[in-house]
Amino acid sequence: SPAGAMLQPPPVARYNLNNVTTTARPLENRENILLLTPMARFNPAYWDNLLRLSYPHELITLGFILPRTREGNLATRELQKRIAHVQTQAPERDRFKSVVVLREDLDPALSPLASQDERERHQLARQKARRAAMAKARNALLVSTLGPSTSWVLWLDADVVETPPALIQDLARHDKPIVVPNCFQRFYNARTQAMDERPYDFNNWIDSDAARELASAMGPDDVLFEGYAEMATYRTLMAYLAKDDDNDDDEGERDLHEEVLLDGVGGAALLVKADVHRDGAMFPAFPFYHLLETEGFAKMAKRLGWEAVGLPNYKVYHYNE
Amino acid sequence: SPAGAMLQPPPVARYNLNNVTTTARPLENRENILLLTPMARFNPAYWDNLLRLSYPHELITLGFILPRTREGNLATRELQKRIAHVQTQAPERDRFKSVVVLREDLDPALSPLASQDERERHQLARQKARRAAMAKARNALLVSTLGPSTSWVLWLDADVVETPPALIQDLARHDKPIVVPNCFQRFYNARTQAMDERPYDFNNWIDSDAARELASAMGPDDVLFEGYAEMATYRTLMAYLAKDDDNDDDEGERDLHEEVLLDGVGGAALLVKADVHRDGAMFPAFPFYHLLETEGFAKMAKRLGWEAVGLPNYKVYHYNE
Ligand SMILES: Nc1nc2c(ncn2[C@@H]2O[C@H](COP(=O)(O)OP(=O)(O)O)[C@@H](O)[C@H]2O)c(=O)[nH]1
Ligand SMILES: Nc1nc2c(ncn2[C@@H]2O[C@H](COP(=O)(O)OP(=O)(O)O)[C@@H](O)[C@H]2O)c(=O)[nH]1
Ligand SMILES: [Mn+2]
Ligand SMILES: [Mn+2]
Repeated sequence: SPAGAMLQPPPVARYNLNNVTTTARPLENRENILLLTPMARFNPAYWDNLLRLSYPHELITLGFILPRTREGNLATRELQKRIAHVQTQAPERDRFKSVVVLREDLDPALSPLASQDERERHQLARQKARRAAMAKARNALLVSTLGPSTSWVLWLDADVVETPPALIQDLARHDKPIVVPNCFQRFYNARTQAMDERPYDFNNWIDSDAARELASAMGPDDVLFEGYAEMATYRTLMAYLAKDDDNDDDEGERDLHEEVLLDGVGGAALLVKADVHRDGAMFPAFPFYHLLETEGFAKMAKRLGWEAVGLPNYKVYHYNE
Repeated sequence: SPAGAMLQPPPVARYNLNNVTTTARPLENRENILLLTPMARFNPAYWDNLLRLSYPHELITLGFILPRTREGNLATRELQKRIAHVQTQAPERDRFKSVVVLREDLDPALSPLASQDERERHQLARQKARRAAMAKARNALLVSTLGPSTSWVLWLDADVVETPPALIQDLARHDKPIVVPNCFQRFYNARTQAMDERPYDFNNWIDSDAARELASAMGPDDVLFEGYAEMATYRTLMAYLAKDDDNDDDEGERDLHEEVLLDGVGGAALLVKADVHRDGAMFPAFPFYHLLETEGFAKMAKRLGWEAVGLPNYKVYHYNE
């Protein structure tokens, strides 16, 4: 493709990985962010939130991967329209450093992710194939876009519709290999007749003896999923560690930046030092210590000596379908 | 760096991974090769052999990673000189599509690979740290250079000094996810008073019951290395499967393209379909099924459903130090 030809680097480029910093002050050090999103559907609220991120857009490369389904075609068209607009019509300061859009090479007919409704998607029996396919999509996106000058990778799902604008700076300031905010969901509470919020992402957890025992009794290809009654793990879920903020008075007291060490992470929003991926930590599409995808990634990173921390009180919000 | 700035892709690029073919006829289909070399020392014979590869250079991107040791500095200077020459002075058809040179970000003082002589390097006790560091160097090189239009990755060590010029076409024609030639070494045979050759790379093997039993008795962080008397694996080594070619008469009869299925592979020369890496198969720097680096890579690829084949009679040659 002509775009492909243009993307080629010049004949010779030299990089000293030692000069690529990854610090608590990425903005001051002009560190490059690679913001990666696997996208099945296009959600305008995701896009608007993305545009509001206050980290300098000129330091952000966007990477997307979309499935080759009918839904994926539709999302690709919507996405391309928005990209073309921001990169050519929007004020200079809104434009991103570069944007890469990938389409999966799966046969849509074979894709375990194709045409499943929300209910079906969450059934235990389907989770394994679904999470494996998601892992492959994330890996393909990662290895195709990470470059020698990337400092941080921010994973942001296409259905995360609300984050603080300083998300990147706020997470990076923890200076941790992997940092995860708490993913909640807003909903209309019929009881209180008011908008409310509830925990959404249960993949951020601290391991338990019960889960370790379940795992040790499993066959090598079995997977331990979180959030299924038939498989009680008694893990500590970060989703439930958020301090209640019903009462506006203690707002100032809650520590937004409180950290907890995590053994499993979700991918809704996830900041990773690029060196973690460079060392070879990726999203296993095969059972890795009985874990798949983002949960397996946390375990693999740990095997490589990198820890993950979660921020129970720092919230981002998932779309409510 | 200015080179870094120039390397940026244009604002928007779109790729359909489905259109990137990886076939038995890469040349006819104009498939892009990413040729990756971790390099501790510069060997002119490696470079001369590289230049003789008959696959169109305009379809080959070269990627190097060098350690931040004194030796690595020296090798980087030698390499840069050769690169500058071929990319600007050599005839058009000798020039490569692009070249990326990376320097590791390890503290050389901490590097387990620093200043070890050949003897020491091969001792069992040091192998673990050494292979883990090599794995990280390979992963950093891979994720920093693989792009959306890469079809194949050829791993070629910097001390592989002789291969058939059609190496890429010859290996690709097997149309296998991973293909490994047999790595030999030329030497002067004092007995026959003539040049001779002997097996060199023992990381290409077929698993054995004995090795599986050794592994199952090991602790989770223990590693099973090949080629050490104190750890007899009884694996079948591809190095010893090459048909004797002392007798020139049977030359025509030997099947250069005979295949054997492998469970472990070495990295001296290794052709990999880019999709294998895109799915997340990398070089584990932690014990993975008691295997590290290239041997662990073969196992990880297998877990992802990709097989490795070796070509016992198709030879490449390692430098004789
Ligand atoms: N490339 C790609 N992305 C997908 C696919 N299925 C879902 N996604 C995206 O991957 C992310 C996570 O998927 P989602 O279904 O929201 O997972 P959940 O929120 O954990 O139930 C979202 O950004 C989706 O848009 C797929 O088949 N291919
Ligand atoms: N980047 C990098 N490459 C290395 C380092 N040590 C060795 N290499 C290269 O990695 C490859 C394999 O290493 P080598 O010592 O030859 O392994 P052996 O042939 O299996 O004993 C060769 O191309 C070396 O030049 C290192 O510390 N950093
Ligand atoms: Mn979601
Ligand atoms: Mn060698």
